[in-house]
Amino acid sequence: MNDQPVIGITVGDPAGIGPEIVIKALIKHHLNDKYRLVVFADHAVIDQAFFHTGLYADIREVRKPDDFHFQSADIHLMNCGIIDHHVQMGQINADCGNSVLSHVSSAIEWALKGWVDAVATAPLQKESLQQGGSPYLDHTAMFKALTKSNDATTLFMVDQLRVFFLTRHIPLRDVADAITDHMLSDAIPRCLLYLSQLGLTNPVLAVAALNPHGGEDGLFGTEERNTIIPAIKKAKSAGYRVEGPIPGDSVFHLANEGRYDGVLSLYHDQGHIAAKTLDFYRTVSLTMGLPFLRTSVDHGTAFNIAGQNKANETSMIEAIHAAVLYGPIIKNSPDSS
Amino acid sequence: MNDQPVIGITVGDPAGIGPEIVIKALIKHHLNDKYRLVVFADHAVIDQAFFHTGLYADIREVRKPDDFHFQSADIHLMNCGIIDHHVQMGQINADCGNSVLSHVSSAIEWALKGWVDAVATAPLQKESLQQGGSPYLDHTAMFKALTKSNDATTLFMVDQLRVFFLTRHIPLRDVADAITDHMLSDAIPRCLLYLSQLGLTNPVLAVAALNPHGGEDGLFGTEERNTIIPAIKKAKSAGYRVEGPIPGDSVFHLANEGRYDGVLSLYHDQGHIAAKTLDFYRTVSLTMGLPFLRTSVDHGTAFNIAGQNKANETSMIEAIHAAVLYGPIIKNSPDSS
Repeated sequence: MNDQPVIGITVGDPAGIGPEIVIKALIKHHLNDKYRLVVFADHAVIDQAFFHTGLYADIREVRKPDDFHFQSADIHLMNCGIIDHHVQMGQINADCGNSVLSHVSSAIEWALKGWVDAVATAPLQKESLQQGGSPYLDHTAMFKALTKSNDATTLFMVDQLRVFFLTRHIPLRDVADAITDHMLSDAIPRCLLYLSQLGLTNPVLAVAALNPHGGEDGLFGTEERNTIIPAIKKAKSAGYRVEGPIPGDSVFHLANEGRYDGVLSLYHDQGHIAAKTLDFYRTVSLTMGLPFLRTSVDHGTAFNIAGQNKANETSMIEAIHAAVLYGPIIKNSPDSS
Repeated sequence: MNDQPVIGITVGDPAGIGPEIVIKALIKHHLNDKYRLVVFADHAVIDQAFFHTGLYADIREVRKPDDFHFQSADIHLMNCGIIDHHVQMGQINADCGNSVLSHVSSAIEWALKGWVDAVATAPLQKESLQQGGSPYLDHTAMFKALTKSNDATTLFMVDQLRVFFLTRHIPLRDVADAITDHMLSDAIPRCLLYLSQLGLTNPVLAVAALNPHGGEDGLFGTEERNTIIPAIKKAKSAGYRVEGPIPGDSVFHLANEGRYDGVLSLYHDQGHIAAKTLDFYRTVSLTMGLPFLRTSVDHGTAFNIAGQNKANETSMIEAIHAAVLYGPIIKNSPDSS
């Protein structure tokens, strides 16, 4: 077990399902026995998650690697000390946002110091984060800023499918105009680099088409002809192993069959629908392009069921597995930015 | 077997994979022994498919129901008599388009006469169809015109998922503006009617959202707030069982889990990606709103592998199964238009 990486786990918003799914993953599914894990949270929040789940373990508070004692069955906790009271579940709350800001920052600091090898995050609540005084909109913004990584890139993994996103949180009507040669020319080499960092040899990337049937030669849209095909040709000429544009309704199937190592989807729902329809709970999100690997559940805080012991912990388990599996490779990659 | 429906099967473009997948479905998978099937094609084209597949059966040419003799192992063929020579596979060809126009028209005529109870179609090639003198762009146009059905609607089925489409063959950049209250108000009752016609009791329809996270209250798009939510509210007030808008990355998963009986997707790739990533080969397409059921494979002619005995016949088998299963219900539905 000593050669295993140490994984930091942040519980996300205390009023959401994050603490519950972390505790279920660690105790009910025995990940705490199997791996070397450090939880970033408030002690009171973990106690409340014990109460909600009916699960329990001894807590070992740690403030530096010397405090680790993974031979024990204790949950290792980096106690952020923001919340010391009962949290009202499912509510926007400045204290909760403040707790997230504190415990995620702390996990990033530990990762930069090399005290943990990768970080797996449970979901936060954006509005609470704002009310808690965060200058960052979300997890990705926090990881990018605090690690000074401009190129941080989200990758979804499920089954054999690895999906990148060219655009994400913009209205669907703005997607066609947002896609530029510059973006594609920047994204293609980075996606290929990240696939290599995941241990794939000579990976091949497929670029999804934007329009039905890939535009059917201009009949249903001109972006393939005018922007996407030229960018792919240019990348190919430069020696990159990239194919496409492949129509959206076949590219994910083909990638999942192993024909392509990764897919560059062009908009949020294109890649999200593919991954999450294929396996809603086992889809895991990786943030690439940081100095260390961050993995994440691909769902939100689910305030409507928080505190009811109803949340499905599968995605959290997958996020921890992925951190253990890929964290050391990415940390040691000579190309990691 | 006598109470079974009679299903018409059109082989589609003779230069594509259609004849091959029909012959494989009927002989290799024994559907011709199990069901009462009439193939619409040219005799020479079937002979060529025997040659390509190495499969063989006796042919019984039929021109009216009196000619049927389903107790025999013969393939029942309505010979359209357009092609009497070897077809160059994988090529655009006016004769092939003319053959499709003839044999599909003939199958529709038989269905309108009640000689067949439903029609399952293999893929055609649009350019060949045009060169063959067809006034119709594709299958759907042909079925709509020849049956005088303005409301013909495509439905994809795979696993527990049933997907309708509000828009289809338009550029992605035009989708947001294409979605109107009028279209939604027209589509919601029809989708619910079609779900009832498939035998579902008190079906519930979910409408997919257009934007990431359903627009996140206007942050990533306003169509939900301005158009989709009001249309759904109006339909609910009128007593229709409809939910939404549900974000694209969860609505298909939820429907496949049984939470909704059908999903109204808002654009081509939204529904296509969900269905075809879930199970590429077993996705089957139903055309609802005709006087009879038409089912179809959900793929094209695959000219690149035509005549090579490489085509996967699964979708054709599913299309025939669906025609047998749902054809009689829809034919006898009092509401079928």
